[in-house]
Amino acid sequence: MSSQKPSLPKGTRDFGPEQMVKRNFILNTIKTTFEKFGYLPIETPSMENLSVLTGKYGDEGDQLLYKILNSGDFLSKTNEQDYQQGHKVMLNKVTEKGLRYDLTVPFARYVVMNRHQITFPFKRYQIQPVWRADRPQRGRYREFYQCDADVVGTDSLICEAEIVLMINEVFKKLDINDFTVKINHRKILSGIVEALGEKNKESDFAVAIDKLDKIGLDKALEELKEKGFSEASIQKLIPILNLDGTADQKLSHLKDILNATETGSKGITEIEEVFQYLKQFQLANPPVKFDITLARGLSYYTGAIFEVKVNNVSIGSVSGGGRYDDLTGVFGMPDVSGVGFSFGVDRIYDVMEELDLFPQENLSTTQVMITNFDKEAEAYALGILTKLRAAGIYSEIYPESAKMKKQFNYANKRLIPYVLIIGPEEMKSGQFTLKDMKSGEQTTLDLDVIMKKIKV
Amino acid sequence: MSSQKPSLPKGTRDFGPEQMVKRNFILNTIKTTFEKFGYLPIETPSMENLSVLTGKYGDEGDQLLYKILNSGDFLSKTNEQDYQQGHKVMLNKVTEKGLRYDLTVPFARYVVMNRHQITFPFKRYQIQPVWRADRPQRGRYREFYQCDADVVGTDSLICEAEIVLMINEVFKKLDINDFTVKINHRKILSGIVEALGEKNKESDFAVAIDKLDKIGLDKALEELKEKGFSEASIQKLIPILNLDGTADQKLSHLKDILNATETGSKGITEIEEVFQYLKQFQLANPPVKFDITLARGLSYYTGAIFEVKVNNVSIGSVSGGGRYDDLTGVFGMPDVSGVGFSFGVDRIYDVMEELDLFPQENLSTTQVMITNFDKEAEAYALGILTKLRAAGIYSEIYPESAKMKKQFNYANKRLIPYVLIIGPEEMKSGQFTLKDMKSGEQTTLDLDVIMKKIKV
Repeated sequence: MSSQKPSLPKGTRDFGPEQMVKRNFILNTIKTTFEKFGYLPIETPSMENLSVLTGKYGDEGDQLLYKILNSGDFLSKTNEQDYQQGHKVMLNKVTEKGLRYDLTVPFARYVVMNRHQITFPFKRYQIQPVWRADRPQRGRYREFYQCDADVVGTDSLICEAEIVLMINEVFKKLDINDFTVKINHRKILSGIVEALGEKNKESDFAVAIDKLDKIGLDKALEELKEKGFSEASIQKLIPILNLDGTADQKLSHLKDILNATETGSKGITEIEEVFQYLKQFQLANPPVKFDITLARGLSYYTGAIFEVKVNNVSIGSVSGGGRYDDLTGVFGMPDVSGVGFSFGVDRIYDVMEELDLFPQENLSTTQVMITNFDKEAEAYALGILTKLRAAGIYSEIYPESAKMKKQFNYANKRLIPYVLIIGPEEMKSGQFTLKDMKSGEQTTLDLDVIMKKIKV
Repeated sequence: MSSQKPSLPKGTRDFGPEQMVKRNFILNTIKTTFEKFGYLPIETPSMENLSVLTGKYGDEGDQLLYKILNSGDFLSKTNEQDYQQGHKVMLNKVTEKGLRYDLTVPFARYVVMNRHQITFPFKRYQIQPVWRADRPQRGRYREFYQCDADVVGTDSLICEAEIVLMINEVFKKLDINDFTVKINHRKILSGIVEALGEKNKESDFAVAIDKLDKIGLDKALEELKEKGFSEASIQKLIPILNLDGTADQKLSHLKDILNATETGSKGITEIEEVFQYLKQFQLANPPVKFDITLARGLSYYTGAIFEVKVNNVSIGSVSGGGRYDDLTGVFGMPDVSGVGFSFGVDRIYDVMEELDLFPQENLSTTQVMITNFDKEAEAYALGILTKLRAAGIYSEIYPESAKMKKQFNYANKRLIPYVLIIGPEEMKSGQFTLKDMKSGEQTTLDLDVIMKKIKV
């Protein structure tokens, strides 16, 4: 076998130790918060039958699915005619499985397949990678983690309020303090469309409004015109989109505008109830902003919708979600409603790098390294190492009696905070020299004092 | 879209909340132990270029690789003639990427690609799923997790001894107390083959010996005969395979037999050194057995080899590994030696189920559920819930004021240990009723007492 220079597939990444420690800090914070609020973990396979995945993400989504070639003679179900007809005909005959595209469809499949075992309301979280054959660009990868939490089988708006609480808790724990949870309601958007006299154009409306941030008001209105919105309804819409003031003020204005539409009124009542719950939860200064221009593209949302933006950074939304009233209908199980949301780990990682928020002192798991002076000191040191580990201290010995400079260099690069020096003198006195790698300070101490010092 | 009954691809599994909690118990134990011994986490992408994977696992392995169909018109690089020549010709033209088959080859690729950033000796662990298009059967899946730890860039046998320590620590923490770490050395096996006068038949020898457990001595010897081992060498081999006694006794016997072979003598010295290190680590009653019949199939091992078996269960080896002297040569970076091992999570899970070792009390993460009596009590309860969570107690409220029976049934099925009852009386008195779901006992207490009780 001739040697080759290896490479990574485009749009994929290795995570080295330093990145892993940082990512795990974020993931553990999210996981702990989900669990604190009663969410249970599940995992689904990376591969799903294409019959489960196809048709769930629109035509574009179908094309972004990674398909797995059938094993063995993958051509066995094809013939020359199929080949001549091209890849669209061949596709179904050479592949049956695909890689998961998100965590929502596998979750819906899971609920349907396990409906008789599941205790509803079912609160589940899921943290796994997903794959999309998208064009790679900055911040967009072909393999990336999603962190979803959903509760299905209840209409209680406590769940919406708790989503805000979880978002708040996660960001506070990560020391990201300046962020905004934008909240809106699909039924308010529907009510507006109805009040404009443009009923049945909800979906065009949502798509155009969703882009407001990026393309600006004028272009968004132009798009609505192209989709058949009348000049009169657009003139009526402008002051609505420009509504200002507190959430209470905006909602009270909207109430007047939407009082004739049942859907719109329901949306307002629900949003008010979410705010009421947040008060009952005694959340001080809720970072929530009612934003009539928040639409979210995904078509399956039917209730409250969320999106989280960290303020004063150049990175897009870091979390989002909403309520849906039919998760599993496509798999033959109707009326499963719920609400869910998701954290974008990669973006949160970028935000924390930009704001320099990763705690430096936690970048190493090893708390102390013992030097390896010579064979005799090594034998002695192994006993000390055993004592450190028995006390729960993450520790290691440099595995060879290399030059001290090399050993210290290793500890330094690995960001290990302490080095314990054990040589002939230390063995004689039973006292050891502990070097603080950050300050450079060296102190000679008894082992039990050293252990207490390291453990702090 | 017509509804459909969804299913899972053969050989894959969902992990529900109960399985997840159990699996995480195992995985966290392994992870914590790796970190305590100074191993650093890395993760590599699920997809690798086929040029990285192909040819690394033998012909059979190549066929078990899952290949990913190129995106878009996957036939664009093919022509009719290719099609007529069949799937072997077509394969390279319709796929460029595959799913990772193990964690060793991606690790080797990682080391080569990051050689200038890595601080050697490099101790890494990696816990990720791998995929094999194998025939599914009991205990064999097409997607399963591997948990690998390797240290590269040092020949120190401290690493071998620490592998035994880590295995010991993991199984003790899982309450698996009756297990054996079998240890042998590839150079001892080579020495034996040399001493028999059958040099250059090491690989046939290892393959036959590896099956001893399954097929028995007679059949293994027959296989050796078929591979060209002489009757004389087989007669010489039988007493070696039947060597009895302590590790010291066996090694001293072997020394006499292998003293003429440099390789064999080196193997013995190294195994003795590993045992010496275990003594210096002060491991009481090391669960290690020197086993001359342990061979391990993988061809890249060149030093000490390990395999762990839980005694008195019907499940095969639960951990294994060994030393190699050339991890990365195939990628153009020679002389990277190291030693690594792996835990089989699925098998450990099965062992723990068979021995009923999963701690029942830890199957729920939620510690307490608050009942939802009516709107007024709910509003009151949300404040209490906030207090519980602020104290770090994992807690939830039943999201609707459903019938009490339904609410208790939910807590029961979810294995939540406590239910906190908040109704009109409790709101008046400021004392709450706590129900212990296991004993059925109910006590009415102040909130701070309740919090202390739950936290224990």
